[in-house]
Amino acid sequence: MPTFQAPVDHVRFLLRDVLHIERYSNLAGFADATPDLIDAVLSEAGKLCEEVLQPLNQVGDREGCVRHADGSVTTPTGFKGAMKAYAEGGWLGVSVDPAYGGQGLPYVLNTAVGEFASAANLAFAMYPGLTQGALAALLTHGSEQQKATYAPKMAAGEWLGTMNLTEPHCGTDLGLLKTRAVPQADGSYAITGQKIFISAGEHDLGDNIIHLVLARIDGAPAGVKGISLFIVPKFLVKEDGSPGARNNLSCGSLEHKMGIHGNATCVMNYDGATGFLLGEANRGLNAMFVMMNEARLGVAAQGLAVSEVAYQNAANYARDRLQGRALTGAKQPEKPADPLIVHPDVRRNLLTIRAFNEAARAFMLWSALNSDIAHRSEDAAARRNADDLLGLMTPILKGVLTDIGFENAVRAQQMLGGHGYIEEWGMEQFVRDARIAMIYEGANGIQALDLVGRKLPRDGGRAVQVFFGEVSGFLKAAEAEAGMAPFTGPLRVALGDLQKATMWLMQNGLANPDNAGAGSYDYMHLFGLVALGYMWNLMAQATLRLQAAGAADAALATRLVVGQFFMERILPETALRLARLSTGASTVMALPAQAF
Amino acid sequence: MPTFQAPVDHVRFLLRDVLHIERYSNLAGFADATPDLIDAVLSEAGKLCEEVLQPLNQVGDREGCVRHADGSVTTPTGFKGAMKAYAEGGWLGVSVDPAYGGQGLPYVLNTAVGEFASAANLAFAMYPGLTQGALAALLTHGSEQQKATYAPKMAAGEWLGTMNLTEPHCGTDLGLLKTRAVPQADGSYAITGQKIFISAGEHDLGDNIIHLVLARIDGAPAGVKGISLFIVPKFLVKEDGSPGARNNLSCGSLEHKMGIHGNATCVMNYDGATGFLLGEANRGLNAMFVMMNEARLGVAAQGLAVSEVAYQNAANYARDRLQGRALTGAKQPEKPADPLIVHPDVRRNLLTIRAFNEAARAFMLWSALNSDIAHRSEDAAARRNADDLLGLMTPILKGVLTDIGFENAVRAQQMLGGHGYIEEWGMEQFVRDARIAMIYEGANGIQALDLVGRKLPRDGGRAVQVFFGEVSGFLKAAEAEAGMAPFTGPLRVALGDLQKATMWLMQNGLANPDNAGAGSYDYMHLFGLVALGYMWNLMAQATLRLQAAGAADAALATRLVVGQFFMERILPETALRLARLSTGASTVMALPAQAF
Repeated sequence: MPTFQAPVDHVRFLLRDVLHIERYSNLAGFADATPDLIDAVLSEAGKLCEEVLQPLNQVGDREGCVRHADGSVTTPTGFKGAMKAYAEGGWLGVSVDPAYGGQGLPYVLNTAVGEFASAANLAFAMYPGLTQGALAALLTHGSEQQKATYAPKMAAGEWLGTMNLTEPHCGTDLGLLKTRAVPQADGSYAITGQKIFISAGEHDLGDNIIHLVLARIDGAPAGVKGISLFIVPKFLVKEDGSPGARNNLSCGSLEHKMGIHGNATCVMNYDGATGFLLGEANRGLNAMFVMMNEARLGVAAQGLAVSEVAYQNAANYARDRLQGRALTGAKQPEKPADPLIVHPDVRRNLLTIRAFNEAARAFMLWSALNSDIAHRSEDAAARRNADDLLGLMTPILKGVLTDIGFENAVRAQQMLGGHGYIEEWGMEQFVRDARIAMIYEGANGIQALDLVGRKLPRDGGRAVQVFFGEVSGFLKAAEAEAGMAPFTGPLRVALGDLQKATMWLMQNGLANPDNAGAGSYDYMHLFGLVALGYMWNLMAQATLRLQAAGAADAALATRLVVGQFFMERILPETALRLARLSTGASTVMALPAQAF
Repeated sequence: MPTFQAPVDHVRFLLRDVLHIERYSNLAGFADATPDLIDAVLSEAGKLCEEVLQPLNQVGDREGCVRHADGSVTTPTGFKGAMKAYAEGGWLGVSVDPAYGGQGLPYVLNTAVGEFASAANLAFAMYPGLTQGALAALLTHGSEQQKATYAPKMAAGEWLGTMNLTEPHCGTDLGLLKTRAVPQADGSYAITGQKIFISAGEHDLGDNIIHLVLARIDGAPAGVKGISLFIVPKFLVKEDGSPGARNNLSCGSLEHKMGIHGNATCVMNYDGATGFLLGEANRGLNAMFVMMNEARLGVAAQGLAVSEVAYQNAANYARDRLQGRALTGAKQPEKPADPLIVHPDVRRNLLTIRAFNEAARAFMLWSALNSDIAHRSEDAAARRNADDLLGLMTPILKGVLTDIGFENAVRAQQMLGGHGYIEEWGMEQFVRDARIAMIYEGANGIQALDLVGRKLPRDGGRAVQVFFGEVSGFLKAAEAEAGMAPFTGPLRVALGDLQKATMWLMQNGLANPDNAGAGSYDYMHLFGLVALGYMWNLMAQATLRLQAAGAADAALATRLVVGQFFMERILPETALRLARLSTGASTVMALPAQAF
């Protein structure tokens, strides 16, 4: 059976030594996040994830969710108790405004906790995760009355949330959506239509489910400019704030999926259900994007999370399994064979995963800290800077962390040979579960298009210049530091590749948008590599400084080797990405559709 | 529901225009393989695969195999009838010696048929595929009496075969195996032990199952030099050649696996079962390698096969699904949206898969033709040359075609968005099924080690020099041909990378075997890229010559574009592989085991 140990020490290192969280004590909620409190939050979260969520991961996969004849849905054994523990621990409200029952702590802390939960049990973690996303949209766009009605219950985990976008004929292209909203005399709307692929659409984990539903008000313009967002609760809320009459919506069926069996993926039927407009009419996509951006960071964390837990189990196996002898002669001659870990190719695989995991975690927390700054800073320039970086990095985080996270789950599975392919060891579940993260919340190809088509050109390329400026400034200072050359050298090369690619896109993408489209995916990964390489530089610098100050624990020495591996073996991929992208669109677009 | 169309036209092009099969009419059986007969074989095989095997693919996945209380195993609905059709069509015996009931046709033809079958229904195709592998070992190492007893029944598909290597504590490291063989007075052996992961170990598809089992004769040396191979039939064969008494062996349980649910993966218990020595005592690995090498080519074909069927379904979806608009303006303004195929990134994905599939098919058939030459030529030098190339290419085919085949199944799945993740469309099954091919018949890391540790240095590097000579000779001649520059140019660069990598390995791998181990995987893929690039050159040359001779069909023009894509976007990866490999083993080996 697979095991999981929350990477508490690494998160602590990142928050304290790399991101220097203490420097942000002027941000709301950060002063409360003392080192002791951070330690307590991380250890308690880790314990819950290791002891309560992780043991239910295989159970959830095997049992799945069950829809009954009345449309109700039962989650797997143990999920109800786990949800109760998660809610009562206050884990949904870690960074929610205390005015609505949250703890108001930094979002960066909430992000770390989210990774632990997804690593322990991805299908389970989606229930609170989606609730947090819905809550974010509600707190940003809801009226005072709406916030008061729903937010405290959601922050407490008593009511859960969903997002309803996809319809049978449209996922990416929401302009095609058909669900109707008919204005009612009391100011509410009657919502009618069918939504598919609705995660956590129906279940037994809370007293109410607050659906956020995209629909078109009768008479609204066609396309994306006629879409509005509605609050559609499973149970309408009574005057006293408790759940009342059942709304006219139901789960029509559950999808049979490759993975995340513990999460109920529903076809949702709205039959004149009562809905309440959230935010402005016809500005629903705008409101939904608050939720989607938060969700994209959450999905990025899922990619990393599965990569982490898969790594841990592959490394354990490689240390334990005796098979074959080291190429340089027996390392444990007293045993019938050496452990797998003696083999260079096994180590190469493990290091490939780990070098990604540590940098990806840094990248995720660095981005989450930018979200905190963007939302909580009183300095307008700092807010803008952070918001630029967050907007730019969101598609990269989502696309790259889920692509590589999946690849790493596959890689870790491979370390177990045939044992990786059978259910017993749990590795194949990691692969099946990780696969969804590349698809939902905007398939990764859409993330790449969002990057090159929107985020990159926005405000004359301001965001990317902020990033280039930050990395160049870092390099200039760090190149002189002792021990940094093996890190700064490769990063400078990779940054050069990214700058060339950016220039190429700006020149050729304007002339022909297909050039941007044909290069978008390589550009996203090229950007991701540079971001991860930058994170390794930050981590190496922090490590070297700790060592220079006398710290001598083995984890520091290990980290430098893992970082070195990234610089030598992974970062050089930037050259290939640049070469591909620079070939342009002509070959890609040459064939007629029927030739495929 | 997914569909499949056997790539008959492409195989015909490869056999006729690229491999010039008519030039080999001096080889046994090749004179019979007239163009008309080849056409008939390919079309008939295609029809059977499309109409009988493919419709059972999802059924097989959903139902799986069932083990009953008495140890018997039932295969999914329809498999029995399909096996009957496959056997009666003579498809197991396509290239088997007519003396044993086969048709004696070229192995290259059998290989093409095998790809069709695996694409249509991978789990099903394993039953006849394993039988063919066992039959090959039997025909190479069996006594006349053994061959007469088993071969005709196996070639006819009445009796099926298996290979029994793995035990709970050993897969790769067969030297550790514990299954015992005790000599009996009648010359037979009593076999006792447990084998795991035995594909097709028990089922209802034939009248008998001929297990080939590795075991250690009492008193034999420890390690791999004390292993022998035994024929252990499920039913002992009576004097009259019909199945008689039940042997003392049974299926203890079925594994629950990620995919290939239609194939029964068994724990096999041998309790003093009667076995007959196949080949020499203590030379069992040697005999088993005949089967494994054949099986490795078959597994390589599986990687390609799933990539092909996944491509076809993704391309169909991309042509049909309306979603979003072309970046350059609406292409079908009369419709609510354009089809996905207008998007450059969708095309990039499809072309990435297809550019691999066509070259991989050429590589596979080119190798199979070398197998024919190695086994059937009367010219000793030609046999040696072909055998060198086949030995060298076997690990590359297995490792590269299954790695990329799996990646492509994932890529094709991605094109369907959320619909790719649910069972209905069949794409997620392709991913789950394709995954096993990277693991069984020697995990791909083992293939890479076989390449750098055995195949490369063997006979002073003779095989690799044969390949370099062939490609260099081709380039020298082809560089002058009209239209070939976009193909020969990139191939020359890639060949240079491979030659540098080979030199690096020879120099540094001898000094420290860990350098070879740490670079083995990148070397395998680098070699695979060059082989595929060479295949694209051969295909481009054949295509240009056909065009120059007046042929004008659209498939030819399409092929040049697909090949161009490979040259521009895929082949340049050789530089990255070389760069990685050249970093050596020092970082990889730096950490102690407990640091992972």
